[in-house]
Amino acid sequence: MAPSNIQPARGTRDFLPADVRRREYVIGVVRDVYERYGFEPLETPAFENIETLLGKYGEEGNKLIFKILKRGEHEGSGEADLALRYDLTVPLARVVAQYQNDLPKFFKRYQIQPVWRADRPARGRFREFYQCDIDAIGSTSLVVEAELLSAVVEVMRSLGFDDFVVRLNHRRLLSAMLEQAGLPPAQHGDALISIDKLDKLDRDKVVLDMTARGIDSATAVRCLDAFVRPKAADNSEWLQSLATSLASHEEGARAVVDMQALLTLLDGTPAGPRIRLDLSLARGLSYYTGAIMEIAVEGIGSLGGGGRYDNLVGMFLGRDVPACGFSLGLERIIVVMAERGMFPQATAQGVADVVVTFMDDDSRREALLLASELRAQGRRVDVYPDASRKFDKALKYATGRNAKVMAIFGENERRENETSVRNLLTREQTSVKRPDAAAYIASLLS
Amino acid sequence: MAPSNIQPARGTRDFLPADVRRREYVIGVVRDVYERYGFEPLETPAFENIETLLGKYGEEGNKLIFKILKRGEHEGSGEADLALRYDLTVPLARVVAQYQNDLPKFFKRYQIQPVWRADRPARGRFREFYQCDIDAIGSTSLVVEAELLSAVVEVMRSLGFDDFVVRLNHRRLLSAMLEQAGLPPAQHGDALISIDKLDKLDRDKVVLDMTARGIDSATAVRCLDAFVRPKAADNSEWLQSLATSLASHEEGARAVVDMQALLTLLDGTPAGPRIRLDLSLARGLSYYTGAIMEIAVEGIGSLGGGGRYDNLVGMFLGRDVPACGFSLGLERIIVVMAERGMFPQATAQGVADVVVTFMDDDSRREALLLASELRAQGRRVDVYPDASRKFDKALKYATGRNAKVMAIFGENERRENETSVRNLLTREQTSVKRPDAAAYIASLLS
Repeated sequence: MAPSNIQPARGTRDFLPADVRRREYVIGVVRDVYERYGFEPLETPAFENIETLLGKYGEEGNKLIFKILKRGEHEGSGEADLALRYDLTVPLARVVAQYQNDLPKFFKRYQIQPVWRADRPARGRFREFYQCDIDAIGSTSLVVEAELLSAVVEVMRSLGFDDFVVRLNHRRLLSAMLEQAGLPPAQHGDALISIDKLDKLDRDKVVLDMTARGIDSATAVRCLDAFVRPKAADNSEWLQSLATSLASHEEGARAVVDMQALLTLLDGTPAGPRIRLDLSLARGLSYYTGAIMEIAVEGIGSLGGGGRYDNLVGMFLGRDVPACGFSLGLERIIVVMAERGMFPQATAQGVADVVVTFMDDDSRREALLLASELRAQGRRVDVYPDASRKFDKALKYATGRNAKVMAIFGENERRENETSVRNLLTREQTSVKRPDAAAYIASLLS
Repeated sequence: MAPSNIQPARGTRDFLPADVRRREYVIGVVRDVYERYGFEPLETPAFENIETLLGKYGEEGNKLIFKILKRGEHEGSGEADLALRYDLTVPLARVVAQYQNDLPKFFKRYQIQPVWRADRPARGRFREFYQCDIDAIGSTSLVVEAELLSAVVEVMRSLGFDDFVVRLNHRRLLSAMLEQAGLPPAQHGDALISIDKLDKLDRDKVVLDMTARGIDSATAVRCLDAFVRPKAADNSEWLQSLATSLASHEEGARAVVDMQALLTLLDGTPAGPRIRLDLSLARGLSYYTGAIMEIAVEGIGSLGGGGRYDNLVGMFLGRDVPACGFSLGLERIIVVMAERGMFPQATAQGVADVVVTFMDDDSRREALLLASELRAQGRRVDVYPDASRKFDKALKYATGRNAKVMAIFGENERRENETSVRNLLTREQTSVKRPDAAAYIASLLS
């Protein structure tokens, strides 16, 4: 292993050129779709005043925040006054408060930036990782949920995913079902944690997990039974039967109506065919107030999730601000795409179309001139900087860059006013008159 | 002023959508040019192990590094084990050491990432700011300098700058001139600091600054005299006269030959017409070993600089690695471009081509369907989420987004199977048959 001073810090990664290209490709697709949906980019600083972050992520979260030591004479105090961004939601809430007079009342933003958490690093879990969030602030309309889901589905399809569904639930529907199963509201939080494990654990194990949390086992079974889709029922048939069983539960009945309306809105949008009503979807987060959503890929699991959370974004304003958001699991998406070979060929290639080389220093100038001509055509051109009489090194370099063409200048070429051009795919080499070189190379590349 | 907990930390900035667009535009141009020159993207983590950074930036630099407190049980110790990236050069040196077997021997990378310095914030000076570096590692060839300068000049021109020159000097030429003026090598460092002020201070003041640093005043005057371009001499005539005066100074004479060769190489590239030999260019940095370069804009000053530094990138390898780099002053470029109104219209606009609105909830679905149709055409479409019978709010929103077209659905439109389409530039509103809406809107937008 390399000495520690040349390794990146624990839980962080260097992105070499091929990595950056793959990441940029994914981010580019995401950005393009979100822009077509009218989301606008936002960026916030890497660190915040520490009091902006402390207390916002629970006791466990406080411990995972990277804290920055005071500077100068206060450095010795061991106190921290700044902290690294832990998610993109608290900074959004701060921005919404600070610029409340400048931002539109209905504000849709996307934000794709790294966050830092002092988690124990593990396979696929890093201390620096990108989050990729969209949030729509300022409206309680179900159109917001519909637009969000539609955008996310288009992102997934544009990236090349086809084997995924959108799991959809509603916080108040979930609560109503738990209540009807006889679970007191005080135990809902515990139940949600257990229920979240349904996609990883057998049903029996989840019941045990619930009883271990003090939930009566008969109630636990009734809860889980309530989540089972009636045989052969599609989403709207299931909702219809829920409407009946929750008719006397005011909150639950309203949630059913919301879900029915949302399904109607989604019908005809890209998200429509993907929606799978799933009453067991809880996503562990107690802050959801309405729809809960998750993208689930066959055999992989979640690649992102979100929902409506009307009580959070207003935290710095002291009043509720309606909001609905979705966070794509960017790092996981990149891993899955790499495993499945989903990146376009172009992201795996080097950056050079042409490598220009010269065999003696007197040919340097001509090499640079040809490079300029080719770049003016928009080609990506690399000049191998050292004279190489045998051009073995230059050839190795050009191959490493995945260049398609190599142009060579030497004493012969100078004397004859020619350029030697090597097609690196066919290994054919030919000489063309110097003034024709750029056009000839362009013909090889097209 | 807003309460501190809703402000970004001191010296940092939030980038609202219009800011992000401007920044992304500049970064996009830079990236595009650098890719055409064969530079590859590299990204490194925001923080490094603290020992990777400490001691690399001098005593003053050590104080300006943001240090991250240890976590968990060690948090109380007040000790730091990580530190925020202070520049992009030390991380590059670390990467070159760690991946020495994976990277090509000749490695050209660009890196555009934020760095953090605990400087006292001032106008135009921030604690979080982007650096934008290119470096070519592994070759001592002058082709590297020529390519670097050519790339940077193309960036500047692509951004729309035309009133700039490239100041060019050579570290060994500068030293030779100082020696010939009678300045002992031990005082060269002090002299460089003073000389760097020549573009801001009068010559007399610089002489005073030099004497204040213990340099004999007659010597100081001789040093400055040595930097004056002979009347009416162009770059190569001046170099010719320097060749004569430095004929007996081995190092100096070699540097003159290098500079002559570099000028010949640059002739015919985009950088050629911009080069201005300037013996007083020192850029304060003692680590340059060859060419020293700077982009200077009329009435503005430096927007970036660099040079050859063969003794630095190998710091973690324990051996010299030749390198030549250039750092664009991205933040300053953005400020100057904003002041001069150099951003294309598109970066100032909102993101929506079309805002779709509805006047009652029963029209929501049709609004979403039209949005899907328009997005499938590649249009940027925003749906105003709330039913607005008078559409005043929706109109205000659409205007704020700089949308060109608003599509409206209501009871009338439903009954007639129509869409109302308002041209927000001409304020003309017309009704078209629903199936023709997308095509009609496309015609308004083109």
